[in-house]
Amino acid sequence: MTTVGILGGGQLARMMALAGAPLGLRFLVLDSTADACAAQFAPMLQADYRDEAALAEFARRIDVATFDFENVPAESAQWLADHVPVFPNPRALAVAQDRLAEKTLFRELDIPVPEFATIDTRGELDAAIARVGTPCILKTRRLGYDGKGQFRIKSPADADAAWAALGPQAARVGLILEGFVAFQRELSVVAVRGRDGELRAWPLTENWHVDGILSASLAPAVADESLQAQALDAARRVAEALDYVGVFALELFLHDGVLVANEMAPRVHNSGHWTIEGAETSQFQNHLRAVLGLPLGAVRPVGHSCMLNWIGEMPPAAAVLAEPGGHWHDYGKSPRVGRKVGHATLRAETTAGLADALERVGKALGREAQVAPVIARLR
Amino acid sequence: MTTVGILGGGQLARMMALAGAPLGLRFLVLDSTADACAAQFAPMLQADYRDEAALAEFARRIDVATFDFENVPAESAQWLADHVPVFPNPRALAVAQDRLAEKTLFRELDIPVPEFATIDTRGELDAAIARVGTPCILKTRRLGYDGKGQFRIKSPADADAAWAALGPQAARVGLILEGFVAFQRELSVVAVRGRDGELRAWPLTENWHVDGILSASLAPAVADESLQAQALDAARRVAEALDYVGVFALELFLHDGVLVANEMAPRVHNSGHWTIEGAETSQFQNHLRAVLGLPLGAVRPVGHSCMLNWIGEMPPAAAVLAEPGGHWHDYGKSPRVGRKVGHATLRAETTAGLADALERVGKALGREAQVAPVIARLR
Ligand SMILES: Nc1ncnc2c1ncn2[C@@H]1O[C@H](COP(=O)(O)OP(=O)(O)O)[C@@H](O)[C@H]1O
Ligand SMILES: Nc1ncnc2c1ncn2[C@@H]1O[C@H](COP(=O)(O)OP(=O)(O)O)[C@@H](O)[C@H]1O
Ligand SMILES: [Mg+2]
Ligand SMILES: [Mg+2]
Repeated sequence: MTTVGILGGGQLARMMALAGAPLGLRFLVLDSTADACAAQFAPMLQADYRDEAALAEFARRIDVATFDFENVPAESAQWLADHVPVFPNPRALAVAQDRLAEKTLFRELDIPVPEFATIDTRGELDAAIARVGTPCILKTRRLGYDGKGQFRIKSPADADAAWAALGPQAARVGLILEGFVAFQRELSVVAVRGRDGELRAWPLTENWHVDGILSASLAPAVADESLQAQALDAARRVAEALDYVGVFALELFLHDGVLVANEMAPRVHNSGHWTIEGAETSQFQNHLRAVLGLPLGAVRPVGHSCMLNWIGEMPPAAAVLAEPGGHWHDYGKSPRVGRKVGHATLRAETTAGLADALERVGKALGREAQVAPVIARLR
Repeated sequence: MTTVGILGGGQLARMMALAGAPLGLRFLVLDSTADACAAQFAPMLQADYRDEAALAEFARRIDVATFDFENVPAESAQWLADHVPVFPNPRALAVAQDRLAEKTLFRELDIPVPEFATIDTRGELDAAIARVGTPCILKTRRLGYDGKGQFRIKSPADADAAWAALGPQAARVGLILEGFVAFQRELSVVAVRGRDGELRAWPLTENWHVDGILSASLAPAVADESLQAQALDAARRVAEALDYVGVFALELFLHDGVLVANEMAPRVHNSGHWTIEGAETSQFQNHLRAVLGLPLGAVRPVGHSCMLNWIGEMPPAAAVLAEPGGHWHDYGKSPRVGRKVGHATLRAETTAGLADALERVGKALGREAQVAPVIARLR
């Protein structure tokens, strides 16, 4: 009997436990909040990630550890790795936690990245804006997610406002200035690397964000072979450089035929949720297979899928459930503004069928704007 | 927040909880054993089904109840139904618990059944054998499963041996004598009926039994439209007669082009496990959708699937996991002779591809005999 410890008990841990049950696995979730939604389907230890006694109990009760949440303190991940196998390894986690470290690595690996500059003081900001050019984005190096911790700079005159917004955090989380990429599309590649180094990537996914939060994903993306190859190549280089084990995602901008790397997620990723129904093996099960050294599952798509994120609160389920290819995912979380509380995946045999389903669902839920860009891509 | 109570905490409850989590449901399992495998992923109340205090607590903590196990005492099901909605209804459960009642119903509904006769005493057995003819099978009316509680009678001279084997149980569980059907194939139809009366059936499944226990299922079965229509028609008649809500299975013998009804299972069924990967909606999720009055999901097959049952102990997983369409289901049970401990589902786009996968897996696991009849059907 193998018990997998998961640091963080959100929807990713929850879906991982549900996907891992058929492998005969047990789970133990470590989370600081009492109502972590993974705890509805897996035992939980409630404690701060920095609580060494809790970490010790966690380590004692598990055989291997992994993450639902990448912002686990580096020292906690390292402490754990000294006591029990941890995948991905703490170094990979540390690089992916820091926008400066990950962009530096991408550049070293010849993966295109936006212009960027690190900034510690208000004085450095003007020089960085001059060098990177406008428009650009000031971001926290650490702890940003769902578009939080970012400020868009349209012209050098915005420097003061940007510093007012993020300057106070400079000492704690660091800041980075990035050139704004006038991308034609946002794509991601979700890939998995086994303990033996085997790498598999699901087909490229196209993503649409609203207010910095993922709104919709289409998979397979409408993209030619050469783009797929570019993405796979980037994923492979990053994974090998980090000796990565498990699932990860690279978020990419498509700009004039070139894939520019935005960031990496060292875990299962929201843009891979469609794989639950839309691929032979889901990202959640393949992550566990990788972490446990089991053979990786096939990543081939099964039909065409669109994932729609539910942010803030769940819409009524009926319209999606009534769709022939409609699948519902309610994470069991309480509603809160900006919170990811669930998603739906629509699957169809053809792109035309998927577009029709999206149109019906968008209309039934009054969410025409959410589905519109996906429908436009499909038609 | 809706909590579904499940009577019985075996693999069916476990797979139901896993399938219901994405609907935002919570579960509570009632089982008399401490190590019921569903309890690994859902809260459990450990108590005897006859314990009224436990039933009362169970009823208090749930919104609706259903079954993993059909042999819940009729009085317990009725007590529960007086306190909380229960699907399927206790009458449907009672009919399906009793081979005499279910065969009588089938006959009333013009569904072909084997010859049968009820038997209370040794004296009635000879007359029944004479009337039904040999070969025939003496079965307990209640509580039989996986071929248990059956005795095959080849000639009238076997009557004494049959009585010695099952006579002692006559008073407690009743006995029925059935004509032996020299079937060409065994098939089953798994169907779901909603609270509103809508009925959907997955494609016919062909089943192979070894020692009375399901060994392999192939879906969709190689069967023409008229057979599908016969099965759907029988399923509809039974479900409507019982005002059935939820998933059920009809086990059928194919004999000279006619589908002869063997028995009905008033629950999700082993021959429907392939629907987890092989159909747009699994039997587990559709059962919950029906029980909760939600729209039913599509029952269309996704590719061709074969389910292989693991009895007694789990084989090594690697050969199945390494298959492009290989899916593993370990129920987290401890090994025991004759116990269903898990299954695998192989899925492929074509019947030829499925046959090839079965051949590889059969060979790798030394289970050529288990896969051989399925391969023969596919080629
Ligand atoms: N350099 C950039 N150029 C253009 N758009 C960007 C850039 N950085 C971020 N964005 C937009 O903001 C979204 C969220 O930013 P990201 O860096 O991925 O942060 P998060 O960690 O919150 O996902 C991106 O998906 C993209 O739409
Ligand atoms: N009347 C019959 N004629 C031929 N075979 C039968 C008959 N009844 C049972 N069998 C065989 O035994 C298996 C198990 O019997 P069944 O009545 O379905 O009991 P259980 O409840 O154990 O599944 C069947 O799937 C079939 O292979
Ligand atoms: Mg991002
Ligand atoms: Mg049977």
